[in-house]
Amino acid sequence: MILVVCLNPALDVTHHVERVDWAGVNRPTAVYSRPGGKGINVARTLHALGAEVVLLGLAGGPTGSVVEAELDALGLRTAFTRIAGDTRRTFTVVDASSAAGRGAVALFNEPGPQISAAEWDEFRARYSRVLAVAARPGSAAVVLSGSLPPDLPANAYATLIVMAEAEGVPTLLDTSGAALQHAIAAGPHIVKPNLDELAALSAGQTHDSGRLGTRECAQTSTIMAAAAVREAGAQSVVVSLGPEGLLAVTGDGCWHARPQAVVTGNATGAGDAVVAALAHGLVFGRPWPGRLRHAVALGAATVASPVAGEFVSADYAAGMETAAVLEIPAAPGSTPHQPQSSCQEQEKR
Amino acid sequence: MILVVCLNPALDVTHHVERVDWAGVNRPTAVYSRPGGKGINVARTLHALGAEVVLLGLAGGPTGSVVEAELDALGLRTAFTRIAGDTRRTFTVVDASSAAGRGAVALFNEPGPQISAAEWDEFRARYSRVLAVAARPGSAAVVLSGSLPPDLPANAYATLIVMAEAEGVPTLLDTSGAALQHAIAAGPHIVKPNLDELAALSAGQTHDSGRLGTRECAQTSTIMAAAAVREAGAQSVVVSLGPEGLLAVTGDGCWHARPQAVVTGNATGAGDAVVAALAHGLVFGRPWPGRLRHAVALGAATVASPVAGEFVSADYAAGMETAAVLEIPAAPGSTPHQPQSSCQEQEKR
Repeated sequence: MILVVCLNPALDVTHHVERVDWAGVNRPTAVYSRPGGKGINVARTLHALGAEVVLLGLAGGPTGSVVEAELDALGLRTAFTRIAGDTRRTFTVVDASSAAGRGAVALFNEPGPQISAAEWDEFRARYSRVLAVAARPGSAAVVLSGSLPPDLPANAYATLIVMAEAEGVPTLLDTSGAALQHAIAAGPHIVKPNLDELAALSAGQTHDSGRLGTRECAQTSTIMAAAAVREAGAQSVVVSLGPEGLLAVTGDGCWHARPQAVVTGNATGAGDAVVAALAHGLVFGRPWPGRLRHAVALGAATVASPVAGEFVSADYAAGMETAAVLEIPAAPGSTPHQPQSSCQEQEKR
Repeated sequence: MILVVCLNPALDVTHHVERVDWAGVNRPTAVYSRPGGKGINVARTLHALGAEVVLLGLAGGPTGSVVEAELDALGLRTAFTRIAGDTRRTFTVVDASSAAGRGAVALFNEPGPQISAAEWDEFRARYSRVLAVAARPGSAAVVLSGSLPPDLPANAYATLIVMAEAEGVPTLLDTSGAALQHAIAAGPHIVKPNLDELAALSAGQTHDSGRLGTRECAQTSTIMAAAAVREAGAQSVVVSLGPEGLLAVTGDGCWHARPQAVVTGNATGAGDAVVAALAHGLVFGRPWPGRLRHAVALGAATVASPVAGEFVSADYAAGMETAAVLEIPAAPGSTPHQPQSSCQEQEKR
């Protein structure tokens, strides 16, 4: 069973507008509305993969009721702690007339409701019960994904990581800012920063965000920055590189996994698909190279899908065939998280 | 009692953003949400004036439930016909950093839910019952305000006007496009177009939208266009001129009512305040000059209020003292809706 925690769910509303007037009245030609927030996206993808999932979170007010009802209608198992505040909305405007051809997209993300100390206590008590009952070490994982509501302490994820790891359940963390910074010291099993988040974690250290990536020796800088995150507490670091795939720095070795070709499409939700695949691989006990292959293939299939956060099984299967997973050998005498400074890659499947 | 009909209510959501990125992610600094749609605005203003109001409309889904619950919380009497579809949202982004100083405002108005023929039948049956029970001629009025949901026939307002006027209850109509065009022939007591709507009604006739207004002989063109609307069926026409006030062409005479000075502020909801004041004056049996004075004062007070659609009583009272209502005399031998071609005004209080 995979427990997915979504502390700040949302109702995602999207308006498609023929030619946006940013200073006037617009009449959208199409309106979509569905539950969102990174945790919910991860849970939906895991559910589509056939995994046993329970989604835990905080939800309240009429918007929270809509989110719960729509997840129930999908057949997703939810265990939301009800709060007094109203669950947030996110609002996306897609301008179909943009010169870029694919449409300019503006997002407006509400911060989220107030959470009282009592509500946070109640959530943790419920999380603890679900962990104790449902979590059999070796076949369970906890995914902690997305932003925190404004009132929760910055160490909220750190608390949840310590509780899960104490039960022998590995945790997978995908967040940013102070929530990420605080959580790393709690020893999550996997963290999945993107390059911006990795650079922010490395701020004040020697790693320069402009030097991170996969081109030439930027890869070495990225591996060094990820290794520093491991030294700070995380057991494994999987850096998402956008179209360049994933770079994993783990206790078992370092890998660069990438799709065969750059996939164009809608990148929204692709990072959440990567997290879902990593969690799925974790509970299945897949070794790192296979786990990363699944993650890259599912991420690329999600980008290729016209609907944000969804994927076509055939794209996923094709991506599994064509993705490349390259081991990055450690320098002689170094541990895997102290990589050599050369940038050579060596293919390994 | 005033029956206000709002066939296409909305939940109005407003995001204030410090400096909008129209091609990226924005985090609003303030989020407001409240029931909206022109009919609801009119009903809320009438309720604030102490009038006995019943709001009839179509509402459904979780957004409809929110709209109903928030109106109930205001103490407003509602009688919504439940529909299967979800009530629409409108979404407003206010850019606080706009060079214009007062902030650029972008509006995104969802079209509204599907309405089945059975739902529309049920609404009319309920409207008929409320009319029969509540409407005592001489102290009742019906306000029909705002857009129609996409599936309703364009003659929907015409049908409701005929039903009300058959019971001796006068109707006040504020809408646009095909819904307005069809409704005029049904003989509403008052229609309140703005200059754009009046020009659209006059399209194909001799009236040119660029020539309507109050300056010089544009006033005569406006009066002639309004007189043509009366000839098409409306009993009285009150043209809203924005900061220039109102121009009324009625069976009792023609008037131009205007605030003392141009009021700056938020014009959203000012037209709805004018409609509320006209309906209030109608059931109180106020003669036209007093009715127009109230309407201009309440509209100006609404513009002056920082919150869209609300007003401060003191501003309303002050506006009553300072507004000017000028009778436009009919040319010798002409009927009041066939005005003279000169542009002179003659003050009358």
